[in-house]
Amino acid sequence: MIHPSVQIGKNVEIGKYTIIEDNVIIGDNVSIGHHTVIKKDTIIGNNVFIGNSVTLGKSPSSNKKMARKPRLDLPPLIIKDDVKIADQCVIYQDVLLMEGVFIGDAASIRENVEIGKDTIIGRNVMIENNTHIGEKVTIQTNSYITADMIIEDLVFIGPCFSSSNDKYMGKGNYPYQGPILNKGCKIGSNATLLPGVVVGTDAVVGAGSVVTKDVGDGVTVVGNPAKKINKQ
Amino acid sequence: MIHPSVQIGKNVEIGKYTIIEDNVIIGDNVSIGHHTVIKKDTIIGNNVFIGNSVTLGKSPSSNKKMARKPRLDLPPLIIKDDVKIADQCVIYQDVLLMEGVFIGDAASIRENVEIGKDTIIGRNVMIENNTHIGEKVTIQTNSYITADMIIEDLVFIGPCFSSSNDKYMGKGNYPYQGPILNKGCKIGSNATLLPGVVVGTDAVVGAGSVVTKDVGDGVTVVGNPAKKINKQ
Amino acid sequence: MIHPSVQIGKNVEIGKYTIIEDNVIIGDNVSIGHHTVIKKDTIIGNNVFIGNSVTLGKSPSSNKKMARKPRLDLPPLIIKDDVKIADQCVIYQDVLLMEGVFIGDAASIRENVEIGKDTIIGRNVMIENNTHIGEKVTIQTNSYITADMIIEDLVFIGPCFSSSNDKYMGKGNYPYQGPILNKGCKIGSNATLLPGVVVGTDAVVGAGSVVTKDVGDGVTVVGNPAKKINKQ
Repeated sequence: MIHPSVQIGKNVEIGKYTIIEDNVIIGDNVSIGHHTVIKKDTIIGNNVFIGNSVTLGKSPSSNKKMARKPRLDLPPLIIKDDVKIADQCVIYQDVLLMEGVFIGDAASIRENVEIGKDTIIGRNVMIENNTHIGEKVTIQTNSYITADMIIEDLVFIGPCFSSSNDKYMGKGNYPYQGPILNKGCKIGSNATLLPGVVVGTDAVVGAGSVVTKDVGDGVTVVGNPAKKINKQ
Repeated sequence: MIHPSVQIGKNVEIGKYTIIEDNVIIGDNVSIGHHTVIKKDTIIGNNVFIGNSVTLGKSPSSNKKMARKPRLDLPPLIIKDDVKIADQCVIYQDVLLMEGVFIGDAASIRENVEIGKDTIIGRNVMIENNTHIGEKVTIQTNSYITADMIIEDLVFIGPCFSSSNDKYMGKGNYPYQGPILNKGCKIGSNATLLPGVVVGTDAVVGAGSVVTKDVGDGVTVVGNPAKKINKQ
Repeated sequence: MIHPSVQIGKNVEIGKYTIIEDNVIIGDNVSIGHHTVIKKDTIIGNNVFIGNSVTLGKSPSSNKKMARKPRLDLPPLIIKDDVKIADQCVIYQDVLLMEGVFIGDAASIRENVEIGKDTIIGRNVMIENNTHIGEKVTIQTNSYITADMIIEDLVFIGPCFSSSNDKYMGKGNYPYQGPILNKGCKIGSNATLLPGVVVGTDAVVGAGSVVTKDVGDGVTVVGNPAKKINKQ
């Protein structure tokens, strides 16, 4: 089910029962799995791998209760060269995946997100909208990246990380801000970061910590609430 | 692959490679995605949106070791008007989704669950069986709603929430009870609620807290174990 | 789309739009859902149930930044008799599922993993590579089993459990070690276990605990960091 307007490069494999909508552009040496849906206008570079049962270029939606309504007329999903997207991922419109990004199985990425070169997004990671992720970042399995978050280059996030962007928990009309993770900081497994906290360059947050205040450059914090410890 | 017994309303779109089993009823202005499976007897109202690679009306299953065997002959899944179900959701039989409910990508809902009007179920949320969720509730991405839980109207649950219903962790034959969340209470991201705890009306549980005892109406608790703080 | 080399037993049901690659062997009384992909050389026993939109026998992959490159030429996925695999699971090559194993919806299992008889893997559980799981283990919904982990027989793991195997969080070239869970121990919901910790036989870890040191046989620990308490 490939729309006749789709542009397909050389040496492209497309799986069975896969649907490619109008005006999609596909580069050379691309492999696309079975039961996958690629929505209109998506742009795919060279040497890209896409798994089974993936949805690419999805439009956001909402219901009556949601504070933020999604914008219409978003730009397309753009996938640069050498990106790999594993099985059962859902990636929205207005996402830019730079060269060499790896997305594990069942990960999902909302609109208005950019992910830098060679970054690893683990299996079952959920990334919300309006988030910028740098180069050579690792985000391990099951982690949750809230909306309105900034993750600089070379950050390491262990599995089951949790973040949030809404200090008042749904009370109303005020600015949202996710955590800001500065270059090279390391966040342990199942840590919780409160809205707007800044983790400094090369700082370390221990596994299971609950970070309620900013963490200085190079500082290590652990506990609930997280407190500074002497580095070993 | 639409069974001839299926009743289809006006202005219904059905995607490619979608399977609709016998005696399914579909209202007017319904959109159903690609690669979706709708099991027999499911009832779908008007103005309903259903995404790609969804399974609706699934029967529960078990193995030798499971304490609770699923009931047979469950009633069908009923989806009321204006419900939206995103991609890759799995929703069982004996679920009632009231008007305006929104279910994010990859969420899953077990049998004997009712969800009230305009409630938001985030992406990748797992809801176990025998749970009642009220109206205008928000449950954010990656949260886990255990079995035998009660969530009243207007409750807000942040991302990565965790709950459990089994105090003795698989030791045997005794009643299970999930947490009870009273009207309008707010639960922070990655909080843990122990079996049977009650969170009072308009109470607040801080992010990353571990709640081992009941929380009074309007009270705020934080920490591990969670303790009362003065409201700011 | 069944390759002509596939061997199929008696009384086998195969869903619509399902793809079965070359040299797959399927036993008697097997049911396979719709939109499922079974990769080459997978071996399936008797009385096995496989759901919709499942991928079985997947090859691991990587990008430039990953420390560990996956091995090539892995042995096939082997599924023994009476196994059930629910919808939307992704299971890799070089996995051995022993008799009676139950895998819930959207669970995923990486390569070089063995799971013992009658063990329950909950919905949305992610299991990394190089892990051994014993018999009659329960791993509840949303739990995360890191790589290089050992889980002995009769262990109980509550929902949203988190583990990790990399003490230095991506710093370099050194041995990884996940937690070791000895026979019959019980781990509460949303607990965090640090790399290499040993939880003793019949020990108990409370919900929401952060375990930074080994836990002795029969000992109960709670808190962040987890400390010993007197048993009640």
